[in-house]
Amino acid sequence: MDNKDKSEYRIDYFLSAGECNAQSVIPLPMLVQRVIEVSTMHANSVDIGYSRLHGLGMAWVLSRISLEMTRYPGINENFSLVTWVETINRHFSERNIEVIDGEGKTIGYARTIWVAIDMGTRRGADMSVFMDDVVKSDRLCPIARQPKLPAVDEPDMVKVHQFQYCDIDFNRHVNSTRYVDAILNQWGVEFFDHNMVRRFDIAFMAETHYDDVIDVKLKNTENCSNVELTRNGKACCRARIAFENI
Amino acid sequence: MDNKDKSEYRIDYFLSAGECNAQSVIPLPMLVQRVIEVSTMHANSVDIGYSRLHGLGMAWVLSRISLEMTRYPGINENFSLVTWVETINRHFSERNIEVIDGEGKTIGYARTIWVAIDMGTRRGADMSVFMDDVVKSDRLCPIARQPKLPAVDEPDMVKVHQFQYCDIDFNRHVNSTRYVDAILNQWGVEFFDHNMVRRFDIAFMAETHYDDVIDVKLKNTENCSNVELTRNGKACCRARIAFENI
Repeated sequence: MDNKDKSEYRIDYFLSAGECNAQSVIPLPMLVQRVIEVSTMHANSVDIGYSRLHGLGMAWVLSRISLEMTRYPGINENFSLVTWVETINRHFSERNIEVIDGEGKTIGYARTIWVAIDMGTRRGADMSVFMDDVVKSDRLCPIARQPKLPAVDEPDMVKVHQFQYCDIDFNRHVNSTRYVDAILNQWGVEFFDHNMVRRFDIAFMAETHYDDVIDVKLKNTENCSNVELTRNGKACCRARIAFENI
Repeated sequence: MDNKDKSEYRIDYFLSAGECNAQSVIPLPMLVQRVIEVSTMHANSVDIGYSRLHGLGMAWVLSRISLEMTRYPGINENFSLVTWVETINRHFSERNIEVIDGEGKTIGYARTIWVAIDMGTRRGADMSVFMDDVVKSDRLCPIARQPKLPAVDEPDMVKVHQFQYCDIDFNRHVNSTRYVDAILNQWGVEFFDHNMVRRFDIAFMAETHYDDVIDVKLKNTENCSNVELTRNGKACCRARIAFENI
């Protein structure tokens, strides 16, 4: 890994057997974790990371991810994530990620949107104090921008789920990857033997906490599946999945 | 990382904020994952890993872990895991792990026991075909050996838990780290603000699968908490936790 060019950051990974899911590839929640990780490391490396924001009474919060994969890394495969910032303004930052396999071939992309929140008010903070330190890149990200995700008003299926201790992150709210777990758990293990997640869009709308009980609502349409997580009827997260038959 | 000495294997990690738990340190399930990972990488590096065993119709299965920590790595901390094999025979292998902080100070140890299973019968396989390739180390592991873990016959509390898609690993059974989740989830987030897991012992006794419903039984004693996971009354996993007031 050579991260001298400040406009990009790359991490090389090796996928061990024990990390893989039932289909012997990287679990989607772990890939989301890696996307968050490479983004965090890039921000840290140019001093707009956790430490500096903590000093400013702020924290980075992931608002949206859209991920599109042609295939997923499998057991004993090397893969890499490269990230760069497409835009940053006072209110949010668009950061993209390329997923590359061990032979250097692109196998997917992610688009993410991050906001900085004020730790006191838990509301959006003004990022102008540090946004000039960000080196943007004009590298292209060929996948479509984040769509508007609909509410699920007439679900085909609703599961009730309660978040527990291991779901909680350092901000004392539910870890983003545990929302992804809750969404994928709408289906069974055999469904994923025949259906690959080709594109996954998720928007984090409201924080949930330890012990919170949520409804996970699923609505299948012709081209995709929409999922909404609600607490007391209020949306905390919406997602859309486009599956591909395999 | 310099892994020229075949009798040891080391991986250096950086703990990003997004990986941390509610107490802003590495989650125990993730530390267990790292213990599995460094063990896997060491085995791969001396060609007794997933690939070779797969060719022999075998797979490594983790049977026991005992972990003792004086402290856990926190946000933005570097830490390393070093592993070595203490013993190997036809039936099992004892592998130890040292956890080192960014300043080179030992902060914990783990003892693990691994068995190879025959993928057809799912029973223990004879490891004599490859055990001579293992370079053992006489490095010491100062924590006590794995104890015998008792059944929990008269629990103080029982929670029912159902394993779902995201809990399943490449062997199509429940991922070891998800047992750790289920065990820790017996307590709430505030309990862990005041109680650190000083020592954690776990024995994996029977495989569980997608959709399996288990009872998680907890019995507190003066010095520790015993947990047993049972499916249809049969033990699949037992654990013991010694907490320390913090």
